Amino acid sequence: MNTPDRRTYRAVELAELLGGEVKGNPDQCISSIAPIDQASTGQLSFVARRQFVKKAATSKADILLVTADLASSLPHTCIIVRDPYRAYAQVSQLYWEKHWFAPSVHPTAVLADDVVVPADCRIGAQVVIESGVELGTGVELDAQVYVGAGVKIGSGTIIRPRVTLYSGVVIGENCMIQAGTVIGADGFGYARHAGGWEKIAQLGGVRIGNRVEIGANATIDRGALADTVIGDDVIIDNLVQVGHNVVVGERTALVAQCGIAGSTVLGKDGSVGGQSAVGGHLTIADNVHFVGKAMVAQSIENPGQYASGLPVQPFNDWRRAVARIGQLKNLNDKVNTLWAKYGELEAADATPDESSST
Amino acid sequence: MNTPDRRTYRAVELAELLGGEVKGNPDQCISSIAPIDQASTGQLSFVARRQFVKKAATSKADILLVTADLASSLPHTCIIVRDPYRAYAQVSQLYWEKHWFAPSVHPTAVLADDVVVPADCRIGAQVVIESGVELGTGVELDAQVYVGAGVKIGSGTIIRPRVTLYSGVVIGENCMIQAGTVIGADGFGYARHAGGWEKIAQLGGVRIGNRVEIGANATIDRGALADTVIGDDVIIDNLVQVGHNVVVGERTALVAQCGIAGSTVLGKDGSVGGQSAVGGHLTIADNVHFVGKAMVAQSIENPGQYASGLPVQPFNDWRRAVARIGQLKNLNDKVNTLWAKYGELEAADATPDESSST
Amino acid sequence: MNTPDRRTYRAVELAELLGGEVKGNPDQCISSIAPIDQASTGQLSFVARRQFVKKAATSKADILLVTADLASSLPHTCIIVRDPYRAYAQVSQLYWEKHWFAPSVHPTAVLADDVVVPADCRIGAQVVIESGVELGTGVELDAQVYVGAGVKIGSGTIIRPRVTLYSGVVIGENCMIQAGTVIGADGFGYARHAGGWEKIAQLGGVRIGNRVEIGANATIDRGALADTVIGDDVIIDNLVQVGHNVVVGERTALVAQCGIAGSTVLGKDGSVGGQSAVGGHLTIADNVHFVGKAMVAQSIENPGQYASGLPVQPFNDWRRAVARIGQLKNLNDKVNTLWAKYGELEAADATPDESSST
Repeated sequence: MNTPDRRTYRAVELAELLGGEVKGNPDQCISSIAPIDQASTGQLSFVARRQFVKKAATSKADILLVTADLASSLPHTCIIVRDPYRAYAQVSQLYWEKHWFAPSVHPTAVLADDVVVPADCRIGAQVVIESGVELGTGVELDAQVYVGAGVKIGSGTIIRPRVTLYSGVVIGENCMIQAGTVIGADGFGYARHAGGWEKIAQLGGVRIGNRVEIGANATIDRGALADTVIGDDVIIDNLVQVGHNVVVGERTALVAQCGIAGSTVLGKDGSVGGQSAVGGHLTIADNVHFVGKAMVAQSIENPGQYASGLPVQPFNDWRRAVARIGQLKNLNDKVNTLWAKYGELEAADATPDESSST
Repeated sequence: MNTPDRRTYRAVELAELLGGEVKGNPDQCISSIAPIDQASTGQLSFVARRQFVKKAATSKADILLVTADLASSLPHTCIIVRDPYRAYAQVSQLYWEKHWFAPSVHPTAVLADDVVVPADCRIGAQVVIESGVELGTGVELDAQVYVGAGVKIGSGTIIRPRVTLYSGVVIGENCMIQAGTVIGADGFGYARHAGGWEKIAQLGGVRIGNRVEIGANATIDRGALADTVIGDDVIIDNLVQVGHNVVVGERTALVAQCGIAGSTVLGKDGSVGGQSAVGGHLTIADNVHFVGKAMVAQSIENPGQYASGLPVQPFNDWRRAVARIGQLKNLNDKVNTLWAKYGELEAADATPDESSST
Repeated sequence: MNTPDRRTYRAVELAELLGGEVKGNPDQCISSIAPIDQASTGQLSFVARRQFVKKAATSKADILLVTADLASSLPHTCIIVRDPYRAYAQVSQLYWEKHWFAPSVHPTAVLADDVVVPADCRIGAQVVIESGVELGTGVELDAQVYVGAGVKIGSGTIIRPRVTLYSGVVIGENCMIQAGTVIGADGFGYARHAGGWEKIAQLGGVRIGNRVEIGANATIDRGALADTVIGDDVIIDNLVQVGHNVVVGERTALVAQCGIAGSTVLGKDGSVGGQSAVGGHLTIADNVHFVGKAMVAQSIENPGQYASGLPVQPFNDWRRAVARIGQLKNLNDKVNTLWAKYGELEAADATPDESSST
């Protein structure tokens, strides 16, 4: 595993770093992190909610990140912060070996003559950078990355191995893109005719905001005429498909293997669960959350959580369930026949044929 | 964005190019294209259907592509063509910068000694071409493409960065394959035994027709013994999976993230919607269209549109719907009990137990 | 196609190789393989089950792989083995050209100074190997593979072109990984806060067992703290997503485009069908099989086959089915009203309101 350097931190150091306050021994040291129930001597953990206090009380962790109201009920050295889970994330970053190599341009990288590389950038082995590319300060392009003509990459952005950026793609600052992802490939646009398909040239681009994270082997297509747009602070998981002219609102999360069809607009602060499919030309409001495997065929105006699909059953139960659904017409007919003869009039307004589908 | 060169075209030039006819000012110029409701001065747009004529009448576009019957009702300079949408696609291509570099072989490309490169081919940086490869005229292999031993690529085919073509793959003429796609990897074939899985060597190949378009990060496996076959004019979107020995009929479209399992035969002029799954060893007729997220477990003999899946609902509605489906047996039992006592004999032939599942 | 060398084998040679026994002519030769109904002169095929004996009797194959009980009823030269299908797989491997190039390190490969390459390894063009990497004997890294710092690859493992192995990934012996797959990218871990997402550094690794096969363009994320673990003899198809901290039990098969969400534990000897989604933090027992497109939202304790989803119907039938499911509440209400008035008491315990959802 990615051996974290074993650098040791004192409680007071971490408190300062996190803008928090120490309760207990300011010189208490930790050299790694762990979940509350697995933490042992020399480790830091966190308590985000009151229901975990009991578990926390017996934790062997040497330092706990907690909120003020919980600190008092814990015997440990604590660092009091507003958001313990976020603080835990910040500490985790101290243990990540971010930089794989010193600022430099690898001799096997192929750069167009007009490309200027700021002194503190890292350009890995066999990277290819075409003409007209603009790089911010501290950009890291890992091995075998392809950067097409006229691409712009903002300061502090890290691009992992074998990412492909087509010509004209614009990426903001402090983004991270995992290996194998393709940004700016042609959208799926064709005019059907008797003999086949006439390709509609995809003349738009892709604009990605700041602090965007994109997983591995994902695909984000360029626009047909306008650009495909990914807002600031969006997080995108592996193998996600984003079609041409899609707009993803700020802070929205796209989970693994979901797909957003062309020209759909996703609101802010939403989420699309794993393997969900959002159809084309739809508008999804802010704060809409689709659970995994959701099938979204219409626009959504109201915030909230939406779901679809049938969870698994033992195979034979499932076969029967599918059959019964197929037989609903017959069931309806029989019930209506019985109802007509024996039903109560005052209940008649509830007949399926008159009721609106829920 | 992919700055389109701003080359200007006169109506008469375009008409000749499209095999159309000018109505109005033959010297009217345009320098870019746009949708009918967004078009402004200096732009060309199109009207494909009568219902858009009203919108078109107020369009600021300087040139419209229309059919003869609609031209008269529009004040604009028009180019009269048989298929305005296709014509629009053809004009769009005038604005695409197709060629990223001059015909050449980049010095960092690695070619086997026996590979002959026709003078008008483009071989990008760090392309690898193994022994026995045959390239047609005007083939473009962008940076970091891998071409395995014995691969054949037809004239005019463009392969974008980082595509992998395994040994023996055959690709037709005028195809385009987007970045990261893998063609000819081993199919998923194993013989199960007590200790695990015995690999069945995948000895077949992949044959791709002419004018085929394939998206980014897609996978098309090689056959087990016979070849996997993609017909002429097929269009395939991003992240699509095509299993070993699949045959895809001419002009069929495979939309993003759909999957076709091994040995299935898809007919001509069909479509498979996004995230649809077509099972293995099936035969699908011509002109069959599956909407997004379709679950296809049996062969389809009749042309038409097919669908499955439940669209999203608010989470609690969905939970109740799932529960009610689970309770269908009880509902059936109660209705049958009531029916047996009060139902009409002449309606008896409609009882669920006797009816065939639809 | 991948022209199999036409090397000829005698029945007696194959019998020895397979640990089988010849019935008929030990000098009978074959030079290729085929399915029983397509096999012709000079070809070998197999009969795995009694129901195929009739078909086999008329097969033109020159050698058949069969079990002892079936051999007598067939006129062909047979090789009697315990598992004909596995034997067929073993023979298929004789016709695969495994080695694309002689043991060597291609001059364009970029190796860190401290990397030691055993004499019988194959390192292809433009492979990049970072510092601290350990390779077993006979490892094959095809063109453009990226091997991150500290990666360990066991003896006999073959890695096809353009695979990316992030730092610290550990791969066992005799594995094969197809092109474009990414192993060890960051898991999808973030702490939400008002302003966006705080990244949780993914400090774990990925440990892959022996004889594991992984398809093309798949993604297997590194763990958050502990490792993501793929057991021995697991087979993984194309475009599969495995989230951080997932554990996949030995011999389990993951079919194309399925996804396993973070921290889920899959048992041994199971299978996850194509496009199935298994939710996060679940535990799935051994010998559990999910059919294609399954939606798994809860842990599964009992072995067996599980399914979900509605197979496709003609579009209008599907629309009606969806509407009827939406009307189930009304149907329930009407039936309950009728039941209350006319139902039999002894059947009352079957009322939906009292029954548990199945």
